[in-house]
Amino acid sequence: MPSRFEMANAIRALSMDAVQKANSGHPGAPMGMADIAQVLWNDYLAHNPANPHWANRDRFVLSNGHGSMLLYSLLHLTGYGISLEDLQNFRQLHSKTAGHPELGYAPGIETTTGPLGQGLANAVGMAIAERTLAAQYNRPGHAIVDHYTYVFVGDGCLMEGISHEVSSLAGTQGLGKLIAFYDANGISIDGEVDGWFTDDTAKRFEAYGWHVVPNVDGHDPEAVKAAIELARTNDDKPSMIICKTIIGFGAPNKQGKEESHGAALGEDEVAAAREQLGWPHPPFHVPEDIYQSWDATQRGGEAEADWDARFARYQAAYPEEARELERRLKGELPTALTSEKLIEDAQEKGESLASRKASLACLNELGPQLPELLGGSADLAPSNLTFWKGAKAITQSEPSGNYLHYGVREFGMAAIMNGIALHGGFVPYGATFLIFMEYMRNAVRMAALMGQRVIHVFTHDSIGLGEDGPTHQPIEQLTTLRSTPNLSTWRPCDAVETAVAWDTALKRQAGPSALVLSRQGLPHQARDKQQLANIERGGYVLKDCEGTPALILIATGSEVGLAMDAAAELENAGTPVRVVSMPSTDTFDTQDADYRESVLPRNVTARLAIEAAHRDFWFKYVGLDGRIVGMTTFGESAPAGDLFKHFGFTVDNVVAEAEQLLDDAAV
Amino acid sequence: MPSRFEMANAIRALSMDAVQKANSGHPGAPMGMADIAQVLWNDYLAHNPANPHWANRDRFVLSNGHGSMLLYSLLHLTGYGISLEDLQNFRQLHSKTAGHPELGYAPGIETTTGPLGQGLANAVGMAIAERTLAAQYNRPGHAIVDHYTYVFVGDGCLMEGISHEVSSLAGTQGLGKLIAFYDANGISIDGEVDGWFTDDTAKRFEAYGWHVVPNVDGHDPEAVKAAIELARTNDDKPSMIICKTIIGFGAPNKQGKEESHGAALGEDEVAAAREQLGWPHPPFHVPEDIYQSWDATQRGGEAEADWDARFARYQAAYPEEARELERRLKGELPTALTSEKLIEDAQEKGESLASRKASLACLNELGPQLPELLGGSADLAPSNLTFWKGAKAITQSEPSGNYLHYGVREFGMAAIMNGIALHGGFVPYGATFLIFMEYMRNAVRMAALMGQRVIHVFTHDSIGLGEDGPTHQPIEQLTTLRSTPNLSTWRPCDAVETAVAWDTALKRQAGPSALVLSRQGLPHQARDKQQLANIERGGYVLKDCEGTPALILIATGSEVGLAMDAAAELENAGTPVRVVSMPSTDTFDTQDADYRESVLPRNVTARLAIEAAHRDFWFKYVGLDGRIVGMTTFGESAPAGDLFKHFGFTVDNVVAEAEQLLDDAAV
Repeated sequence: MPSRFEMANAIRALSMDAVQKANSGHPGAPMGMADIAQVLWNDYLAHNPANPHWANRDRFVLSNGHGSMLLYSLLHLTGYGISLEDLQNFRQLHSKTAGHPELGYAPGIETTTGPLGQGLANAVGMAIAERTLAAQYNRPGHAIVDHYTYVFVGDGCLMEGISHEVSSLAGTQGLGKLIAFYDANGISIDGEVDGWFTDDTAKRFEAYGWHVVPNVDGHDPEAVKAAIELARTNDDKPSMIICKTIIGFGAPNKQGKEESHGAALGEDEVAAAREQLGWPHPPFHVPEDIYQSWDATQRGGEAEADWDARFARYQAAYPEEARELERRLKGELPTALTSEKLIEDAQEKGESLASRKASLACLNELGPQLPELLGGSADLAPSNLTFWKGAKAITQSEPSGNYLHYGVREFGMAAIMNGIALHGGFVPYGATFLIFMEYMRNAVRMAALMGQRVIHVFTHDSIGLGEDGPTHQPIEQLTTLRSTPNLSTWRPCDAVETAVAWDTALKRQAGPSALVLSRQGLPHQARDKQQLANIERGGYVLKDCEGTPALILIATGSEVGLAMDAAAELENAGTPVRVVSMPSTDTFDTQDADYRESVLPRNVTARLAIEAAHRDFWFKYVGLDGRIVGMTTFGESAPAGDLFKHFGFTVDNVVAEAEQLLDDAAV
Repeated sequence: MPSRFEMANAIRALSMDAVQKANSGHPGAPMGMADIAQVLWNDYLAHNPANPHWANRDRFVLSNGHGSMLLYSLLHLTGYGISLEDLQNFRQLHSKTAGHPELGYAPGIETTTGPLGQGLANAVGMAIAERTLAAQYNRPGHAIVDHYTYVFVGDGCLMEGISHEVSSLAGTQGLGKLIAFYDANGISIDGEVDGWFTDDTAKRFEAYGWHVVPNVDGHDPEAVKAAIELARTNDDKPSMIICKTIIGFGAPNKQGKEESHGAALGEDEVAAAREQLGWPHPPFHVPEDIYQSWDATQRGGEAEADWDARFARYQAAYPEEARELERRLKGELPTALTSEKLIEDAQEKGESLASRKASLACLNELGPQLPELLGGSADLAPSNLTFWKGAKAITQSEPSGNYLHYGVREFGMAAIMNGIALHGGFVPYGATFLIFMEYMRNAVRMAALMGQRVIHVFTHDSIGLGEDGPTHQPIEQLTTLRSTPNLSTWRPCDAVETAVAWDTALKRQAGPSALVLSRQGLPHQARDKQQLANIERGGYVLKDCEGTPALILIATGSEVGLAMDAAAELENAGTPVRVVSMPSTDTFDTQDADYRESVLPRNVTARLAIEAAHRDFWFKYVGLDGRIVGMTTFGESAPAGDLFKHFGFTVDNVVAEAEQLLDDAAV
C-alpha cells in the first residue's frame, strides 16, 4: 500500500505537470495542501465519484480557487469523470479543467471559485442549507439530510472583507458541520504576508464564536487527522483548522516563496521537485497502486447505497415529506403554484402601491406554498419588506425556519445565497437597497456565471428614495445589472408587473433574477388580456394609438405612470403616441424578431425613453435619433417629489422633450 | 456653566427636532452618541470652526453617517457656518444639511458617509496620510504635521466586511493616532443584534493588533474621558473604544429600540424626551450659555495661530520642504512635471508593449517628480506593475514611504485611498485586476461623488487575460465605470495613449480616474502632431480616408490594433474607412459639438464599434443603424489568442461585420 505521502505526491506531481504543460496556473497551493487533502478525502469525505449529484454527499469547496489543480487531481484520482487527457488540457479552451474550478465544466465541482473569499461564503451557505433542510425533513431515527461542508481557504480569502461577514454570521449561527482548513503558508502575491497581514487568526475566529484548532502541521497527516476529529466532535460551532504549510512543498528552490504561487515552476524545478519528493514517475503518470489507494468509487457507491436504503425507509414512514423533499432537491416548483392567478388578481384588484409592497403581497401569497423559499435581508427587512407573514428566523436553536437575518452584510448575503442555491433544496431570495447591490456586486455576477436560481430583491430603486440622498440613490446600477450576462432584471411599474416579475424569477432555473422595486407608491395600469399576457415578454405596448405612432415613449418602473400621463397630454394636443412598458429589457431582447418589431417598429424612430437611472443605457432602444429623459449626475437629498421635479421627471418636461424630438424629426 | 449633560442634550434636542421637522432621518445615533461627542469635541478635538481647511486639524469622521444630525449639531454648536435655519432645512433640496453628511455641502464635513464601513476606511486613510506626511516633512523640533483622526462607528460598520479589511491593515500599520469609538447600542434595523451579530468585538480588534478599551459607559463623560486618555497615550496601535450606549437616549418610550433608529420620534415622544432630559426649551432653541460653552472659535483660532507660528519657524528653517509641503497640500502638481514630454517621447519611441507595462514606464518617469504619489495594489503588484523603481513600502517602522501593500483588500484599498485624498498632500493610486473593481465598486463611486483625485489602475482588462477564465475576465465592468457620473475612464490602445491617460488623471483635480490596462502587448500606433494632441480629447481620428468615409470603425484599447488591421483590409477591397480611437468616452462627450461632429459625422451612419467588453454600451455611438463586435456572454478559460478568435475579435470577423453593415445600409 502506498503511503499517505506518496498519495499526496500524486497530487503534487499532477499539479506541477499540468501547470508546466499549460505554462500557466498555480502550483503552490496544490503542492502545499496536498497532505491535508489526502487525509480529508481518503479518511473522511463522504462522496460518490459515480454520482456527483448524490444529495447527501459532503460538500467540498476550494475557496482558494486558483489552486484548481488540487481539486482536479483529487477528482481524477478518486474516480470522477476527469481523465488524464483532461488534466493535460488544463486551462485550454473548452476543457473540463479551466483555470479556476468552474461549476458544470467537470463533475464534482461544487461551486465556481477564484474571486477570493466567496468560496468560504458559499460553504457557509451550504452548511446553512444542510442544517435547515435537516431540521425541516429529518425525523427521529431518520437522519436523511446529514453531511459536512468542508472548505479550504488561503491567506487571500481571510484578508477579504467577505470572510469577516460570513464567518461572523457562521459563528452566530453555530454551524457545527462546517469545517474550514486555513492554508497558512504566509505567502501572498506581493510576498511574505508579514508586511500586510498580521492578524491573530485563531483569536479572530474565536471572537466570532468558532472552534479553532490552531498550529496544525499541514504536512503531518496524523496532526491533520487529529484536528479533523476534534472539529467533527465539536458540533455546536463551526471549526477553523489552522494548518501551517509550505507553499509549493517539494519544489526545492521555490517552495516557501511567492515564486511557486502563480506560475509554472519551470522544467528544471519540476525535475528537482520529482527528485526531492521521491517521485520517479514521468509527467502525468500515476502508478496503479496509487490509483487504487485513491479510488473512492467503491466506498462512495456503498455510502450512497446505504443512504438510498435509509431514504427508502424514510419514504415509507413519511411519504409526503419524502415527496416534497425530492421535489425540492430537483428544483421543481409545486405544480399547483398560484402565481398566475396572483397576476390576474393583481390586475383585477387594481391597487396602486409601492412595488416593494406589491412584492410583499406576492411573498404573502406564494410563501405558504413554497417551503423552499429561504429569504433574508441585509438588515433592511422593515424597508425591503421581505419578512412576510410566514417568515420565521433561522437560528442555532431553531434552524428549521425560512428566513435569515443576514445583518449588515450585503456581499456575504449574496455569496451565502449562492451557496444555498448550490446546495439544493432551496430558492434563496435576499434583499437590500439597490445602491448596496454594489457591496455584493461580484456575488451577483457569480450567480449569473454559475446559472443559479437566486432572487435579489433590490428596493429603493431610484432618486425616489428621497431624503437619504446621493449615497443611497442608484443611478448607474440598473445599467450594471442589465449588462450582466445571464442575469434577468425586472423593474416593474405596478403591482401586476411585480407579480409577473416574481413569477418569472421563481420559474427561472437557469440563472438569477434581480427585482428592482420602488420605495414610493406607483399607480396601477389598466391592461387587456393580451397586454397582461405580454408582460412576461419583458416589454409590451401598454397604450397604443390609432395607426402608426408619431412617437413611442418607453419607460420602466416608476416612470411608466409618468409616460402615461405625458402620452395623454401629447394625444390631447393631437400627437398619436404609443407607450411601451419595458420591465425587463433582457427578457424583451430574447423575444422573436417579429414580436420586437411589433412593439418597437423600426420605422418609428421618434422614440423617447424615460427612466430615473443613467440615460446611456437607453441608446440601445432609441438610437441616435431618439431622446432620453434620464440621469447623468448623482442625485440629491430631498423629498422624492422635489427630486423628480428637479431632475426633469415631470409631465411638462417629458412633453417638452417629446415635442423637441418631433420637431427634430420634422427637420 | 452648563453641565456636560446639558451640552449633550443640545445635540439631542437639535437632532430630534430636525428629524421631526423633516419627518425623515435618524435620531437614534445622535441621541445615543451625544455624550461621547461632547467629551471628544470639547476636551480634545483640535479644530478651528473659522477655518475648516486648517491643514493640521484633527480629523473627525462619522462612519455611521445616518447619524448626520450629530455632526450638523456639533458643527452648528461649535461655530461652523451652519445656521439654525440650515438645521431646520434638514434633508431639503440644496440645504447644507443633507440626509447624510455630504462633502462640500457644509463646512466641517471631512468625508461623505452613509454607505456603512467606508467612513472607518476613510479614517484609516487619513491616519496613514497624517503619519506618512509627518514622516516626510517633520523635522526634529518641528512637528508640523501632527494630528489625530477620530472616527465614530456603529454596529453596521463593524458588520460590514470592509471593517475587517481596513482594521486589519490599520493594526499591521500600527496607526497610533487613529482612535475609533464604537457605538455599541446593540440595535440595528432588523432589531436587537443578538440574532445576527455576536462577535466579541474587543477580542476581534485585539486580534488585529489594536489597543482596545472595552466596556466604556458611553453616557458617563468621565469614563469616556478616561478612555480617550488611554487611547492617546497608546501611540503605537490604533485604539478602539467600545462604548455601551442606549440608542435614542432620552426618548422614554423608544430609547433602546429600533424604533428610534431611522424615523422621526413623533411629536409626543419628542415632548416626552424633552421632559425626560430636562430640556425645557422650545424646538430649535439653545440657551445662550450652552452656545457659549460649545463655542470653539476662540480655542480653534488660537490653536491655528499657534500652528501658523510653528509653521513659520519651520519655513524659515526648511524653506524647500515648506514650499513643497504647501504645494502638496494645495493639490498642485510641480510646474516642471514632464508628463507632456513623456507623451511625445512615447510617440517617438514607438514601442509596442502591454499598456500595464507602459503604465509602469509612466510611473518610473513621473514618480521621481511626484513625492505626493502614494501608490499601492491589492496584493497584485507584480501583475499590476505598480511598484515602480522608486516605490518604497510604508510600514510602521518606516512610515515615510510612498507605497502601501494593501493586501488582498480591494474595497478597503479604494476607501482608504479616498481617505488619503481627502486628507490632502497626496495623489493616491491603487491597483487590482479590472474584474475586482467589483469588490471595491462603491468606494470608486464615492470618490466620484466626492470629487476626489484618486487614480485607479485596473489591469487585465478583458478576455485578453486568458487562462484565468471567466471569473477573472471583465465583461460589463467598463460599462459600469463609464456610467458612473464624474468618473473619468481611460482604456488606452498603446503606450502613447497610456501616457496621456496618466497625464490626464494626474491633472484631473475634480474627480477620480480609472486607467484600464491590458495584460497583453499592444501594437504602437502612428500619429501626426494633431492626432497626438487630440488624444486628450478622449476620441479622435486615428486613421482617415479620402472624402467621406463609407464606414467608421470605433475601437478602444486592445481592439484599436484590430480595427486598424481590418480597416487596411477593407480599404484594399476599395472601402474608404475611418478609424476612431476612443480611449475615454466621457472625455470625448465633454468636447464641443463641432469637434465631436468632426470625429463622428452625423451623416455617416455605418459605424462599427469593436471592443472586448459588453456590447450594449456602444449603441450610444453607433445607434440602431450600426453594428458592434463586442461581448454578450461571460468569457472562457484559454490562452488569450484562442479567446479573441473564439469570440470574434479577428480581422476576418470584423471585415465580415463591416461588409454586412454596408450591405444593410445599401438596402
